[in-house]
Amino acid sequence: MQILDGKKTAKTILNTIKIDVAQRATTGKKVPHLAAILVGANGASQTYVNSKVRTCNEIGFNSTMIEYEEDISEMKLLDKIQELNEDLSVDGILVQLPLPAHISEKKVIEAIAVAKDVDGFHPENIGRMIMGEEEAFVPATPYGIMLLLEHNNITTKGKHAVVLGRSNIVGRPMSILLSNNSNPGNCTVTVCHSKTENLNEICSQADIIVAAIGQAEFLQPEMVKDGAVVIDVGITRIPDDSKKSGYRLVGDVDFDKVAPKCSFITPVPGGVGPMTIAALMKNTYKSCTEKD
Amino acid sequence: MQILDGKKTAKTILNTIKIDVAQRATTGKKVPHLAAILVGANGASQTYVNSKVRTCNEIGFNSTMIEYEEDISEMKLLDKIQELNEDLSVDGILVQLPLPAHISEKKVIEAIAVAKDVDGFHPENIGRMIMGEEEAFVPATPYGIMLLLEHNNITTKGKHAVVLGRSNIVGRPMSILLSNNSNPGNCTVTVCHSKTENLNEICSQADIIVAAIGQAEFLQPEMVKDGAVVIDVGITRIPDDSKKSGYRLVGDVDFDKVAPKCSFITPVPGGVGPMTIAALMKNTYKSCTEKD
Repeated sequence: MQILDGKKTAKTILNTIKIDVAQRATTGKKVPHLAAILVGANGASQTYVNSKVRTCNEIGFNSTMIEYEEDISEMKLLDKIQELNEDLSVDGILVQLPLPAHISEKKVIEAIAVAKDVDGFHPENIGRMIMGEEEAFVPATPYGIMLLLEHNNITTKGKHAVVLGRSNIVGRPMSILLSNNSNPGNCTVTVCHSKTENLNEICSQADIIVAAIGQAEFLQPEMVKDGAVVIDVGITRIPDDSKKSGYRLVGDVDFDKVAPKCSFITPVPGGVGPMTIAALMKNTYKSCTEKD
Repeated sequence: MQILDGKKTAKTILNTIKIDVAQRATTGKKVPHLAAILVGANGASQTYVNSKVRTCNEIGFNSTMIEYEEDISEMKLLDKIQELNEDLSVDGILVQLPLPAHISEKKVIEAIAVAKDVDGFHPENIGRMIMGEEEAFVPATPYGIMLLLEHNNITTKGKHAVVLGRSNIVGRPMSILLSNNSNPGNCTVTVCHSKTENLNEICSQADIIVAAIGQAEFLQPEMVKDGAVVIDVGITRIPDDSKKSGYRLVGDVDFDKVAPKCSFITPVPGGVGPMTIAALMKNTYKSCTEKD
């Protein structure tokens, strides 16, 4: 069993970008600039946004962090997005989800200029991804997983991949990317969800399992074939008094029991999480350099 | 074994629209108007466009048929689309594919206003369909298949559907619609393609098979489980001297051998084909009535 070390792979990817950005800076070329908007004081959201902004700083990107109180009006948020859309210095805009209930996530996502939608959530980006168009921004989490597979030379062609979950942000794009005619890709892909019958039987046929349902330790060893590759997208905070933070993070996979059966498995944390950030940075870099 | 009679189901759907359109006409409301563009003299394309325009006439839609020579410039075609986009009387625009090699299908598809893209090929429409948004135009063939399942009360929830083919126009949207949280829908869906290994094994587990690979009589009885529902999207012209036309039409399914094993099966012709046209008319009707 080998750990698919997302932290290490992300570092490699980010380092390549960092070197390139430093070179751009010395030759007077534009340096990528990410604007991140955070609404309210959700602890997990704050952690995510902070770590994205920190990564920008580490690799030489410019970043702008915009924080709003929980009760900001939808209109004011949309106005800010419009301003960032028009700001030529900004290459990527991300609005950390979830948003408070009085703000339409759909409206906010669609307000972001397609060319700056580095999270890849705009319907036009999703459509372009499906059509295999190169200019599309692929949603960061599935893109990060594809990069993780690629950098670790995991064979996917002709393999049977089972994706647990059909969300717009992870499960759905993941299933499309894995079945696309590309490398990584060319998997036979089965999408499972809450209405799936005989889930254990289907999972236990899989060469590759991507678990993205947000249920702590859902995937059990009897659902996993010997030698399978297991990618864990879940991240749930479980109260834990033995930790300074008062909680520990677990994934959708019962890691200790499942890991011994796998050829490769991602840990939580340190697996998909860092890769999501690396993918976001790649998208922002792409948005910037495409304008050269 | 029961035949899923697309001709009959399409007739029922079209008749409902026809009655409604007649009522709209008497009350002075706008009647749907489809503009169809045909480039060159491809026999199959001519047949398809003609039958779409004929259907418009039968159900009281206005239609405009625009024919161009094979050598029309891309620019001229794009100008025409722009004109139709701006023409308030036109609700739907379809450009029959394939186009000659000197014209970019991508450019043409993306030139059509999203709100008039009744074929549902524009990336933004595809993205919206994936996100389950109601305003999306669903590509006509997969939409027609969903209507066929719905009108014939085929249970899909929790069933295992295998989709053969991953094209942007059929296989891909089909797999998404079948796995969406909707009715019909909520299937566990496996997407297979040319790189799939052990295809026979996967197919023979399916409760529902959608064959959309364009290979005449590809699906054989040993790939089909007893009682399966089989949907045949393929349509290939096979030379046949015994026919007046000189050819006969066959699907992706070896119908005579497979049919006895099925609970339901679509014939070719008379299955998915008429449903595609019915779906196109539903999209055009929707485009018109949404503006009421």
